[in-house]
Amino acid sequence: MTDQSRILIKGGKVVNEDCSVISDVYIEDGLIKDIGLNLQVPAGVRVIDATDKLVMPGGIDTHTHMELEFMSTKTADDFYTGTKAALAGGTTMIMDFVIPNKGASLLQAYENWRSRADSKVCCDYSLHMAVTWWADTVKREMESLVREKGINSFKMFMAYKDVYMIQDHELHAAFSACRDLGAVAQIHAEHGDLVAEGAKKMLSLGITGPEGHEMCRPEEVEAEATQRAATIAHATNCPLYVVHVMSKSAAKVVRHARQQGWVVFGEPIAAGLGTDGTHYWHQDWAHAAGFVMGPPLRPDPSTPGYLMDLLANDDLSVTGTDNCTFSICQKALGKDDFTKIPNGVNGVEDRMSVIWEKGVHSGKMDENRFVAVTSSNAAKIFNIYPRKGRIDRGSDADVVIWDPNRTRTISAKTHHQAVDYNIFEGMVCHGVAMVTVSRGKVVYEHGALYVTPGAGRFIPRKPFSDFVYKRIKQRQLIKTPTAVDREPYGGVVVRLPS
Amino acid sequence: MTDQSRILIKGGKVVNEDCSVISDVYIEDGLIKDIGLNLQVPAGVRVIDATDKLVMPGGIDTHTHMELEFMSTKTADDFYTGTKAALAGGTTMIMDFVIPNKGASLLQAYENWRSRADSKVCCDYSLHMAVTWWADTVKREMESLVREKGINSFKMFMAYKDVYMIQDHELHAAFSACRDLGAVAQIHAEHGDLVAEGAKKMLSLGITGPEGHEMCRPEEVEAEATQRAATIAHATNCPLYVVHVMSKSAAKVVRHARQQGWVVFGEPIAAGLGTDGTHYWHQDWAHAAGFVMGPPLRPDPSTPGYLMDLLANDDLSVTGTDNCTFSICQKALGKDDFTKIPNGVNGVEDRMSVIWEKGVHSGKMDENRFVAVTSSNAAKIFNIYPRKGRIDRGSDADVVIWDPNRTRTISAKTHHQAVDYNIFEGMVCHGVAMVTVSRGKVVYEHGALYVTPGAGRFIPRKPFSDFVYKRIKQRQLIKTPTAVDREPYGGVVVRLPS
Amino acid sequence: MTDQSRILIKGGKVVNEDCSVISDVYIEDGLIKDIGLNLQVPAGVRVIDATDKLVMPGGIDTHTHMELEFMSTKTADDFYTGTKAALAGGTTMIMDFVIPNKGASLLQAYENWRSRADSKVCCDYSLHMAVTWWADTVKREMESLVREKGINSFKMFMAYKDVYMIQDHELHAAFSACRDLGAVAQIHAEHGDLVAEGAKKMLSLGITGPEGHEMCRPEEVEAEATQRAATIAHATNCPLYVVHVMSKSAAKVVRHARQQGWVVFGEPIAAGLGTDGTHYWHQDWAHAAGFVMGPPLRPDPSTPGYLMDLLANDDLSVTGTDNCTFSICQKALGKDDFTKIPNGVNGVEDRMSVIWEKGVHSGKMDENRFVAVTSSNAAKIFNIYPRKGRIDRGSDADVVIWDPNRTRTISAKTHHQAVDYNIFEGMVCHGVAMVTVSRGKVVYEHGALYVTPGAGRFIPRKPFSDFVYKRIKQRQLIKTPTAVDREPYGGVVVRLPS
Amino acid sequence: MTDQSRILIKGGKVVNEDCSVISDVYIEDGLIKDIGLNLQVPAGVRVIDATDKLVMPGGIDTHTHMELEFMSTKTADDFYTGTKAALAGGTTMIMDFVIPNKGASLLQAYENWRSRADSKVCCDYSLHMAVTWWADTVKREMESLVREKGINSFKMFMAYKDVYMIQDHELHAAFSACRDLGAVAQIHAEHGDLVAEGAKKMLSLGITGPEGHEMCRPEEVEAEATQRAATIAHATNCPLYVVHVMSKSAAKVVRHARQQGWVVFGEPIAAGLGTDGTHYWHQDWAHAAGFVMGPPLRPDPSTPGYLMDLLANDDLSVTGTDNCTFSICQKALGKDDFTKIPNGVNGVEDRMSVIWEKGVHSGKMDENRFVAVTSSNAAKIFNIYPRKGRIDRGSDADVVIWDPNRTRTISAKTHHQAVDYNIFEGMVCHGVAMVTVSRGKVVYEHGALYVTPGAGRFIPRKPFSDFVYKRIKQRQLIKTPTAVDREPYGGVVVRLPS
Repeated sequence: MTDQSRILIKGGKVVNEDCSVISDVYIEDGLIKDIGLNLQVPAGVRVIDATDKLVMPGGIDTHTHMELEFMSTKTADDFYTGTKAALAGGTTMIMDFVIPNKGASLLQAYENWRSRADSKVCCDYSLHMAVTWWADTVKREMESLVREKGINSFKMFMAYKDVYMIQDHELHAAFSACRDLGAVAQIHAEHGDLVAEGAKKMLSLGITGPEGHEMCRPEEVEAEATQRAATIAHATNCPLYVVHVMSKSAAKVVRHARQQGWVVFGEPIAAGLGTDGTHYWHQDWAHAAGFVMGPPLRPDPSTPGYLMDLLANDDLSVTGTDNCTFSICQKALGKDDFTKIPNGVNGVEDRMSVIWEKGVHSGKMDENRFVAVTSSNAAKIFNIYPRKGRIDRGSDADVVIWDPNRTRTISAKTHHQAVDYNIFEGMVCHGVAMVTVSRGKVVYEHGALYVTPGAGRFIPRKPFSDFVYKRIKQRQLIKTPTAVDREPYGGVVVRLPS
Repeated sequence: MTDQSRILIKGGKVVNEDCSVISDVYIEDGLIKDIGLNLQVPAGVRVIDATDKLVMPGGIDTHTHMELEFMSTKTADDFYTGTKAALAGGTTMIMDFVIPNKGASLLQAYENWRSRADSKVCCDYSLHMAVTWWADTVKREMESLVREKGINSFKMFMAYKDVYMIQDHELHAAFSACRDLGAVAQIHAEHGDLVAEGAKKMLSLGITGPEGHEMCRPEEVEAEATQRAATIAHATNCPLYVVHVMSKSAAKVVRHARQQGWVVFGEPIAAGLGTDGTHYWHQDWAHAAGFVMGPPLRPDPSTPGYLMDLLANDDLSVTGTDNCTFSICQKALGKDDFTKIPNGVNGVEDRMSVIWEKGVHSGKMDENRFVAVTSSNAAKIFNIYPRKGRIDRGSDADVVIWDPNRTRTISAKTHHQAVDYNIFEGMVCHGVAMVTVSRGKVVYEHGALYVTPGAGRFIPRKPFSDFVYKRIKQRQLIKTPTAVDREPYGGVVVRLPS
Repeated sequence: MTDQSRILIKGGKVVNEDCSVISDVYIEDGLIKDIGLNLQVPAGVRVIDATDKLVMPGGIDTHTHMELEFMSTKTADDFYTGTKAALAGGTTMIMDFVIPNKGASLLQAYENWRSRADSKVCCDYSLHMAVTWWADTVKREMESLVREKGINSFKMFMAYKDVYMIQDHELHAAFSACRDLGAVAQIHAEHGDLVAEGAKKMLSLGITGPEGHEMCRPEEVEAEATQRAATIAHATNCPLYVVHVMSKSAAKVVRHARQQGWVVFGEPIAAGLGTDGTHYWHQDWAHAAGFVMGPPLRPDPSTPGYLMDLLANDDLSVTGTDNCTFSICQKALGKDDFTKIPNGVNGVEDRMSVIWEKGVHSGKMDENRFVAVTSSNAAKIFNIYPRKGRIDRGSDADVVIWDPNRTRTISAKTHHQAVDYNIFEGMVCHGVAMVTVSRGKVVYEHGALYVTPGAGRFIPRKPFSDFVYKRIKQRQLIKTPTAVDREPYGGVVVRLPS
Repeated sequence: MTDQSRILIKGGKVVNEDCSVISDVYIEDGLIKDIGLNLQVPAGVRVIDATDKLVMPGGIDTHTHMELEFMSTKTADDFYTGTKAALAGGTTMIMDFVIPNKGASLLQAYENWRSRADSKVCCDYSLHMAVTWWADTVKREMESLVREKGINSFKMFMAYKDVYMIQDHELHAAFSACRDLGAVAQIHAEHGDLVAEGAKKMLSLGITGPEGHEMCRPEEVEAEATQRAATIAHATNCPLYVVHVMSKSAAKVVRHARQQGWVVFGEPIAAGLGTDGTHYWHQDWAHAAGFVMGPPLRPDPSTPGYLMDLLANDDLSVTGTDNCTFSICQKALGKDDFTKIPNGVNGVEDRMSVIWEKGVHSGKMDENRFVAVTSSNAAKIFNIYPRKGRIDRGSDADVVIWDPNRTRTISAKTHHQAVDYNIFEGMVCHGVAMVTVSRGKVVYEHGALYVTPGAGRFIPRKPFSDFVYKRIKQRQLIKTPTAVDREPYGGVVVRLPS
């Protein structure tokens, strides 16, 4: 009988971010034990033929919202359906967000999220923590989360006024805290006041449909906030991670910041790379509403290609999905007022295929860069590399066997998510996940899933990721401002009126 | 006997922004009566020979603070010494700022400023109004000021936290009010929170000298605020005027905004064009403190040349000085703490010479562009063109006769301002004002002043300047957002938990 | 009886580049005699009511090819039909190109062109001279043309390999000659070798239709040459004028050059501002072929709006048309091979309307900037300002009375050009020329033309235009490189093998 | 007795481009046999303690000229002194250029270079081939070199007119050949005509000193050629490698090309990263002449920091030195005429230290990026990765043990090169090579060299490097232009005059 905990992947091309090489991969007890040709392996191991296939690190989706209560309702996908779908698409780890309400305890929110997720996840996962208000207690809880709970990333909102949005001086404080703790500051970058004013204006003009959602928050509103966040981060010598970079102008801000040497990372998402905001003008309300998310997709049709160019070129670094699914009947809560449409789209299942199609098949990036932007860079930034994000001796056995020559057509009819539509409906993608291995087990193979709820593990992450913090620490050391050494002023001082 | 109210300027080259032509200029009763060769003029007019000289519109300094109480003290120059010095340098009109305290009446502040200035000014002047707080009463007072008091420009501060600074949603409201009133929104662009935090940090590091002033508010803090203000202005379809553009990065923001078609104007100042922020690191405290102003001059020595390139190229539009003089003994209030150094430098007298030297003599711009940036564009933006800013029949007789071949050396020893130092000390300038005519009278000639306090007049300005508002109005008309015409959603709506 | 040589235009708004003012305009003997309200005019003058209309300088089309033999055939429009159509559209002056063959005399070509044009032109005109080969005799002829024939602009081709194209070292020589003579160097900027190779490649791939024309010379080929020409011009301190800027990337090169302070002017054309290169992919061959010109229109549909933004913003300076019309049966010479399609499109009649529609009506520029880019800037660059390009006392009476509220639909059925199609077919334009006055005579009024062949005059132009050369001369003076003053080297020198 | 062919490096931090990890490295027979903690190694191996040290791949200098006859003389350093010095600085491989004269056989030149180098090199080396003329035979020889001689990179010159420079249509042909062969096209990017004209001009102005060298070829001349080369490369779908990127503007061109997705790599050199062109204005002729190279170092002092920012940010990819040394007595050949100063500077020994100091110590990049830019990227581009450029099982044992905490002062007095001055004289560098291992042997240790002439090997390189060509090949496949499918034109065709 075949030993399912021992797998030999034979004959494939192992693709890491630095190079590809024909090699066998031997997996045992959830880890990659060895790589090479003609490996010595025990008898009875399961052998998977990967000839003419690529053997790549499983994808890491840096940005999901499973089982989130938001805008009066709850996402269609929970940690079970969400992670199951992820695995079907070749993604073996997700990073979800804990979002406490203003005034609420971060630690309690963390525990709450853990308790939701732990029993349901079919693959490994990790958590980012949102900071939606500011106080000394928040700072202290951040410290506990970093030291004791495996959190090394905190997300702040510049939008969602009165709900999650915090002020610039609070951002300054939060970024300073992140820097001291060795955490990555994440930002939702939109100018909240302008979004709020824009929404009022659109409604006052009688614009209630999904197109109003984009028009009330055009891309300059995103670019402005990105610039502001980067400036505050630079002032505090804190690394910044911009979640869901959705527009050309915001992406340019990230690029420019990096060119100046600022430690900034930009995360485009599958939706932004694979489709665009022209859908908001679609004649069918339900179709249009299905694309509503914040920041919105952009109506400029050259946006996805531009974002992909920057991703190929390392101006943008990693990819997530902001997977936050609501079915059409949920979207319909905003049928008469776009501000009430629950924000969010799918992506966790299709991200790998979309990026392969638009990035690799198009000739914009090669397979190695694909690995970098779908897993390795995420693992480096969030300090779990090379345990995740690399096929190497000692790494976790999270692997996808990819057929670059096969195609599939994305459709809600065949996808594994719980949501009842798909923003990529009808897209033909070259590049298909044939087999997914999670924690050393085959969980997806030739269209069939073999998952177990709760089989995934929470992956704690340590602060001070080398990839992010080496430069930060060196600058802290080298660039401290110093005073001019000069004689005290000895002249007259004007007398002030008493 | 010669009639002093009738002047014939003979043989000079009349320089306007569009071209130069050898022509005589005949002045009567404060106005330019005629231009041409072989003019018929009454007997007994005073004739001024302008052979080999340039006859140009007198300068308009768009940005002064005379007689301002600020940071516990009052500027060294008042409206008398300030306007006298202006005339000696070829400037025939200043625009000063009324700055009410938070909570105070704008109208009362206006009357207060008028009463200070009217009796002292030796040349024409006008007033901008600062909006330092927000309320419905402020909006109503803005309306009165526009309709009844000749104010068409309002300045908002993004810095000076707790003193003048207002919040983004207040900026949005103020910009909207400006747009409705046909006024120009002016902005002091620095991120107030970051400046405040930066100052705390510098002091905590033991940096108390003038160099701390720049280090606590580096140029990205200015660029960020400029981008933010431009974004808010664009969102409100309000024209924006950025006062004292001091850095390359802020200037780039203005340039980029204009390239996108946003209605934005940038005002560099004499200090920023003629010197730089390396002085803050000067060994002599008094020398260094003399350059303290906000936003600061920049230590990058390529800044002045860069700003001049953009001014030559119409990426920047007009020039002021932010003339706000404090003598050394006043600067000394901050001898142990740079945050207590009164902010401000000189410039009203030397602006024309500095711009000629660095702009025209250097070959970056020609004499016509010089006129555009020293008077015509200011007159257009603030809606007093072609009464001011042009040598033409019917225009005010505010004229400077300029010798482009002569040089002078700037020095506190010889300047006409009350302040006891000069930031341009020792600068040799080609281009010297030989004769200044204000309101049709010779007020400065070959080094001697013939001024009368109160001889200048307050120049009221009407709203909806063509130069600024034609595009704004057309866009208001053409670019109103419209809704997609679609069938109402007829499907199921999720039921919310009751 | 009414005196047709004396005209009073009453009640209109006179629009110059610097401002607009309600004023009457009195014309006598071909010149503008006076401007103002309540003018004293002789009895019997013809009065034209211009109430609610704009009174603007007649347009100057900087770039036409009338009666040109090119690619085995001759343009459909000659100097008669071409200038007649110009007047119908509000354009009162054209600048045509003399193009001698390689090896041929420039002076003879000039005389040849004069003899063609003089007897036919219905409005004033001027000539640019092409330099299609290089030799000392060419240089001497350039000198004669400048000194004796009223030519102050020379155009060089970087494309049309083996026909008109010259090499970089010849460009260097030609630019140097222009600078010495005070002339403007004009450039057709496309990389000729790449165009030639591209054409070969397309044909070898079986691409013979009009789309091949664009694909063989994509916009980077234009941008490259623009950058190269600007660099050579800067190295020689020669002013550069880039004819027909057709792409975003080439326009960016012009913009960037200007921002560095280089003396460069960019000329977009009506075709590039009003339509785009998607037409090359049109299913109907004749339709597609009608748009073939070099450099081609660009398939990126955001190009026209972008060029207009830069034109509004003074990154681009003037507008021409490259009017060079071939009827469909002429275009058909290339029915089996796009390289044989005669290059050229219409524009001379519709330029003013197209720019008004896309520039002014859209809110991108105001009426004053419209005047600047349709006439004043051309007049300044080519040194005929303010004789042309301004409504002022003493200027030529070339005037258009414009109704900004009326619309017309462009069509080959109604246009006055000889060519049998129109690239703007069906475009509805706000802004219509109601009356055109040329040389003081009404030549077009309410749809009817009153033209006389030969009534126009050749306008000679002097070198060293102030607008172009003031900075050039100052730089020549100020920026001469100087040697370091140092001790001669006194050490050992290696002995060379003999 | 210790076995010198077996080495265990213990306790160091192994630094690869993707991450760093504390690990031992075991070397046997010239290869890295194993990595990890607690390795099983044979008895008697030599153990090197690397505690608190970094264990990095030995540097690859992508650009040297050893033993080159140039400008009437021969470089001071030959393959022996040059490679010896390289090893002392931590560089274990150099890539030199074969430069045949115009008309000469490439294959013969190759053999000639091999015969010079093979017997002298102390470390591994490889060869780039220059293409200095064009003919079918050249193309055939290129093919032989790729197929049989291990050459996969060809360098073309756009400067050195009449010596090495080729024309644009020849570049097009050469780039096309490279693409077909799977080779990397390298370019020396300066506009040769402008350089030649500039040199004439400087000499005519009496400028004969080294400052004339820079003034005759200012940075826009480099930027122009870089843009041109990139455009031609893009047109041919050929990867481009720009050698010695020396200026901000040229670097921006590379950056911009990459952002558009063009396959372009930029190589700054140690000289450009570590010093600047202000030295050309030095009072001492010999000092100034020592920095003469082409393209020159730039007088803008912000250049080195800017280039380092782009190198840190992956806008620039690899680093070489253009090491081409001439002693002062050789430089003196140009004592009366800068055009006769032999071009070239040192760098092969100090490159690693200079980049560490200016890049890593300054906080601009981390140690992993240091490895990428000093070896890994070069190995990838030139297709010898991971044999070179990585510390991994199976890689060549070219290793440097680096002490990041130690400093050294660069000086001609202590360096190992044959040349008698050093452009980095006096620079204090953090980061010192403690031990260098080449081909598995310790060749440098604590200041002492243990080298053997001829011990290095020529490393042949295969074409179609994955890192470079994966995208090229995919684009070749996907982006072939296609024709519009349309009906043939059926209308009238104009009859041509017979």
